[in-house]
Amino acid sequence: MQAGIIGLGLIGGSMGLALQETKMFKTILGYDINPLHMQQALSLGLVDECVSLNEIQECDVIFLAIPLDGVIQTLENFHNIPSHTTIIDLGGAKEKIAHEIPSGIRKNFIGAHPMSGTEFYGPKAALKDLFKNRIIILTDLENSGEFQVAYAKEIFVSIGMRIIKMNSKEHDQHLALISHLPHVISYALANTVLSRENPQTILALVGGGFKDMSRISKSSPIMWKDVLKQNKENILKSIDLFRKEMFLAEKLIQEDRWEELKEWMAKANTLQNFM
Amino acid sequence: MQAGIIGLGLIGGSMGLALQETKMFKTILGYDINPLHMQQALSLGLVDECVSLNEIQECDVIFLAIPLDGVIQTLENFHNIPSHTTIIDLGGAKEKIAHEIPSGIRKNFIGAHPMSGTEFYGPKAALKDLFKNRIIILTDLENSGEFQVAYAKEIFVSIGMRIIKMNSKEHDQHLALISHLPHVISYALANTVLSRENPQTILALVGGGFKDMSRISKSSPIMWKDVLKQNKENILKSIDLFRKEMFLAEKLIQEDRWEELKEWMAKANTLQNFM
Repeated sequence: MQAGIIGLGLIGGSMGLALQETKMFKTILGYDINPLHMQQALSLGLVDECVSLNEIQECDVIFLAIPLDGVIQTLENFHNIPSHTTIIDLGGAKEKIAHEIPSGIRKNFIGAHPMSGTEFYGPKAALKDLFKNRIIILTDLENSGEFQVAYAKEIFVSIGMRIIKMNSKEHDQHLALISHLPHVISYALANTVLSRENPQTILALVGGGFKDMSRISKSSPIMWKDVLKQNKENILKSIDLFRKEMFLAEKLIQEDRWEELKEWMAKANTLQNFM
Repeated sequence: MQAGIIGLGLIGGSMGLALQETKMFKTILGYDINPLHMQQALSLGLVDECVSLNEIQECDVIFLAIPLDGVIQTLENFHNIPSHTTIIDLGGAKEKIAHEIPSGIRKNFIGAHPMSGTEFYGPKAALKDLFKNRIIILTDLENSGEFQVAYAKEIFVSIGMRIIKMNSKEHDQHLALISHLPHVISYALANTVLSRENPQTILALVGGGFKDMSRISKSSPIMWKDVLKQNKENILKSIDLFRKEMFLAEKLIQEDRWEELKEWMAKANTLQNFM
């Protein structure tokens, strides 16, 4: 069997490395819109060969690991793929794409979101063990072909992932809160500090707390722009919920309601029981 | 020489361990308002002996590692300390305390803030290397005695810290942005997610980004209540600056201004050049 990966960055490149370990595939083909990324992916050994977008369509399984705005456009060019082909989208927002999958390839399509990543991007960010022991959310499986579902599960289990099923609407609601909102906050915190502090102060004074809180503000703006665009309504709702908590904290501080502030922080402490 | 530590939690306990390694002190005495903490500190070997608050006053150097509201109260009870005694406050906000140090012991007093910590607290959180290679900010040194300044520097260099001097007003402004604001945000994010998601979902879905963003929401509510109280005005200003960045992001998302959103995130990316 042959696997194809479109998009050879952190996720696609790591998938190449993980698939190699399974020995399930005779060859792993890659494609990236950026020729430099194809060159890097080859020299890093992320895929066996780089080919054209047309040749990728001949693979048994095709992974899409590209910014979300490119997914539909790419799917629309998949005219003549065989009925047994499995197309797996690895993007971070699911509902909008679910509505736009060309009906002719709906059974071929599997929506999948690996709960793994780092703040780094591009082929050099790829990691062999990025997916190991991590969750993968498979969405709207009732609309995918039985073979494709079984095949995708087989692959994800082979690379060490644990499968959770969810519909794409729920996925996007949960992820807005648990992943997309934290990214917006981290970017906002980074910009707040950049607007007020000079580099020397930042270099000298930042501790572990700030480092953690700003880590994901290093993430790819191209990828995240598309995620926020495709999950716009849920993210706006999450920002609104977060704003209410910030407003409450601010009010308690402003009005010297220190015991209530302490209780508010103690409530937050309980989160650690679930993590 | 003898060292005394008041407050045997993460900071005080770690100081006990760090001081032991320097071999500068014949004995290290400890005191904590909580008898259980004294017992734990002894069995963990954080200090050599636990004594009364009165006996601590006979030490050559006395560290205060307690919630800020207790600092002034404790200092007011330091009636008869010898003129050569050095009192080092290790708290996270400096200006308010600077105004309230009893004048009789002003020369004995050193304001110090180690840029190190973890989200854990209590004696069991103490770490031998918590201060190693970290920054310590010494504040308003011009108001401290020459001997006390020299002695404090000697101690901090001995435990592997790098010294930065700053006045307490500047300290509180910088720390509001770089440390206190991130803590408020992390508590608010934790409470946002707790208000909407059930424990099972949190357990299943959280990834590295959320884990990092919520780590410091596990921090001590008692300690942080006092920090936020003592640095109230600067924190309210920082929250206001952060609100503006969040509002900008929200507006760009709401109005589908995706290219500008991408630029806003790319600006945040530049922070990593200074960290």
